[in-house]
Amino acid sequence: MEKEAKGQLRGIVGKDYFLDSPNELYVYSYDATPLYQAMPDAVVMPGSVEEVAAIMKVATQYRIPIVSRGSGSNLCGGTVPVDGGIVMVTNRLNQFKEIDQQNLTATFGPGVITQDVHKAVEALGLFYPPDPGSMRISTMGGNVAECAGGMRGLKYGVTKDYIMGLEAVLPSGEVLRVGGKSAKDVAGYDITKLLVGSEGTLAVVTEITAKLLPLPTAKQTLVAYYNDLTDAARTVQRVIAAKIIPATMEFLDQATMVVVEDFARIGLPLDMQAMLIIEQDGTELQVEHDIARIADLCRAEGATEVSVAQTAEEGAKLMAARRAALSALARVKPTTILEDATVPRANLAEMVEQVNRIAKQYDLQICTFGHAGDGNLHPTCLTDERDTEEIHRVEQAFEDIFHAAIKLGGTITGEHGVGMAKAGYLDLKVGPVGMDLMKRVKEAFDPHGIMNPGKIFAKSSRRRVVVKTHACEHEHSHN
Amino acid sequence: MEKEAKGQLRGIVGKDYFLDSPNELYVYSYDATPLYQAMPDAVVMPGSVEEVAAIMKVATQYRIPIVSRGSGSNLCGGTVPVDGGIVMVTNRLNQFKEIDQQNLTATFGPGVITQDVHKAVEALGLFYPPDPGSMRISTMGGNVAECAGGMRGLKYGVTKDYIMGLEAVLPSGEVLRVGGKSAKDVAGYDITKLLVGSEGTLAVVTEITAKLLPLPTAKQTLVAYYNDLTDAARTVQRVIAAKIIPATMEFLDQATMVVVEDFARIGLPLDMQAMLIIEQDGTELQVEHDIARIADLCRAEGATEVSVAQTAEEGAKLMAARRAALSALARVKPTTILEDATVPRANLAEMVEQVNRIAKQYDLQICTFGHAGDGNLHPTCLTDERDTEEIHRVEQAFEDIFHAAIKLGGTITGEHGVGMAKAGYLDLKVGPVGMDLMKRVKEAFDPHGIMNPGKIFAKSSRRRVVVKTHACEHEHSHN
Repeated sequence: MEKEAKGQLRGIVGKDYFLDSPNELYVYSYDATPLYQAMPDAVVMPGSVEEVAAIMKVATQYRIPIVSRGSGSNLCGGTVPVDGGIVMVTNRLNQFKEIDQQNLTATFGPGVITQDVHKAVEALGLFYPPDPGSMRISTMGGNVAECAGGMRGLKYGVTKDYIMGLEAVLPSGEVLRVGGKSAKDVAGYDITKLLVGSEGTLAVVTEITAKLLPLPTAKQTLVAYYNDLTDAARTVQRVIAAKIIPATMEFLDQATMVVVEDFARIGLPLDMQAMLIIEQDGTELQVEHDIARIADLCRAEGATEVSVAQTAEEGAKLMAARRAALSALARVKPTTILEDATVPRANLAEMVEQVNRIAKQYDLQICTFGHAGDGNLHPTCLTDERDTEEIHRVEQAFEDIFHAAIKLGGTITGEHGVGMAKAGYLDLKVGPVGMDLMKRVKEAFDPHGIMNPGKIFAKSSRRRVVVKTHACEHEHSHN
Repeated sequence: MEKEAKGQLRGIVGKDYFLDSPNELYVYSYDATPLYQAMPDAVVMPGSVEEVAAIMKVATQYRIPIVSRGSGSNLCGGTVPVDGGIVMVTNRLNQFKEIDQQNLTATFGPGVITQDVHKAVEALGLFYPPDPGSMRISTMGGNVAECAGGMRGLKYGVTKDYIMGLEAVLPSGEVLRVGGKSAKDVAGYDITKLLVGSEGTLAVVTEITAKLLPLPTAKQTLVAYYNDLTDAARTVQRVIAAKIIPATMEFLDQATMVVVEDFARIGLPLDMQAMLIIEQDGTELQVEHDIARIADLCRAEGATEVSVAQTAEEGAKLMAARRAALSALARVKPTTILEDATVPRANLAEMVEQVNRIAKQYDLQICTFGHAGDGNLHPTCLTDERDTEEIHRVEQAFEDIFHAAIKLGGTITGEHGVGMAKAGYLDLKVGPVGMDLMKRVKEAFDPHGIMNPGKIFAKSSRRRVVVKTHACEHEHSHN
């Protein structure tokens, strides 16, 4: 990067918020997606939208790549500065500007932590549903960039369903304001929804207005154990077909249960092949009715044991066990390869069968857990990256898993995003027509290609799925 | 249009589905938005996605404008072929392909009538919430193009919130498939949501996959009358602030009540200044609880009379009265000018006050009704287009109303779309940065500018709001 550009950037944010020593740059060379790393040329930490705009103008003038990021808790290599350039950290834009109780909206900067949004609005009897696994450290800017999901996606949808308005800065430095607090708004193209999930490749979000709901007054958690994994998957289908939409329906197979138990010591029956953790919220009466009905359906589909958590603490403990799944798996072998294949929920049983078939075919240990209610599975391979031959089989296996998901009407990524990790596979889902169109949309925002280059769109045709998670880095899980 | 192009088009769809006689063309020269009219050069009625693709190739080859349409029930001049060219009628693409009861989705062609979707899914205990006023004649393709709203928007959102996947043909003739049945999908930009509400300016939709909900088991309707119009508006705020989200909260002012009563004879108390019609759905217990609470809030805010419909028929009759509002108003004077200004719902009272102030200032008769719950108001001016002096004041008044809506954090159109009618005002909402960006997005889809030209983006800076409704054309109301 030109010395002149660096000087301009330092001038914009001040010397305390401009980093370019190797030690400092190293910290921003990776995110929660191991095996991906690249050094930026400079790190800037703007404190206002005006500073963001000024930085963008410099980046455009010198054609410097801009990678915006918050906590870097994504699992797709989405914030690794693969072409160098500027990493723009948005954590200082963490003002909580307003909770509007009449319009049921919250407005805040992109640096606000997801869980802080939950806490702030729940204190007022309001509810922001998206709950990615990383919510204790992830920023809302990151949630918007990746369209974060979570366990409540089944009933409540994902980040996109809650973002009503955005302020964002284009590469030109122009400030764009789209959407707002109006529940209905059809004034032109929906740029708001287009920016959600665009992974920092179009613009840098500087303010977020989110929709809130009234906080449900009651919640119950049920757990069901199965001798046969496909019975569990079929239960999920039966519940939905019975027109009950639980807040959460999580799925763990035996291998996952074993390591979770070892990690969390909550007394899981380790002879079982699978478990479902189902949570319903709403009014007390409705919740009781639904949970009773769900328990019946679990038994009808062959659950050997069904129990309802007697207290909120007991329920929370079960959910915490599920949240620990990835961290627990990551302790077993040196390399944990986590995937995010997603199918229409009715095809869950078939997808689980396909994963098991593929694991057998390639002689691999694949544990499967995930958000069964919305078909969002995380087949996770426990392996060792030093074993090149096995890693080759892993890559083939996951390629087969993606093809299977697509064949079942699903997608290559349900909630982690494309980033670098899935860029080579995007065409499987959207085809050449979709790829070309998305590239043209990108050019409409970013004519010089400086916004998070190398993400979403693959540079080469080489497909690569191997992503090692930080062992035991519980907080970094998006799952 | 070149003779050769016409010959090619006729060859694609067959002579029965190619029209170019003046009488036939005339039928497709207008839509439900009076004062806008323009003759197309040809009308084609494709029967398959392959025919749509072939037509698009011809249009691109000869640079012929393509205006796709269904029933033409929009209220923004969205389907008037203002530059001539081809009108592509998608009504023949009316196959109901699937109702998937496990994934809770429905898949159908764009020519399917909105109310037929309601009927088909409700027969299975499922629910497609969007209910635009035109639902008895509007096509789902039109609903997608305009992102149709309706009375249930408050609780259930609008068309965009239910469209999960689309098949669409680009101007190049390429067939694009985006989204699908997966509840979670972050594979690339969300082209699905971008196409919803794009008013035929980007692509022609040839297949739609919509999300369904379980059909609520109970529903109750409440009506409240007020001596003071702003008390009614404040009631709406109080209900939301009490964390109750009713399915519907409709608002009629006195002038509207008078003409509705004259039209529908349902016994409205005509000495009242305003009425609210509030509907809640859900489980029986929840509905009873909410309606009782809402009744209390109505009384607390000064309602002189609050009554709950005793039967479903009584409730339906009240809603039918509301649905008749526009048709009833259209009978009073030769010209009915209907608007769609929308504000965050908490600002409803202030917006109503502003409308009344502006009406007084310009000495005009403006009746206001609309979807109060989501701040989507339809201030409606009763006038006479032959009175040029008054029409000039009307235009000034509505320009003031748009500015007031924007100033209150609202938008120029909540559910009718931009089309030609609002094109001159879009910059008020999205600003020059948003306008430029939207134009570049349009170019990414439509490099030759053949897709519904003259819509969304104004050709000149002349602003024009005067839109006369078809007198008594009940079916054509989107409101």
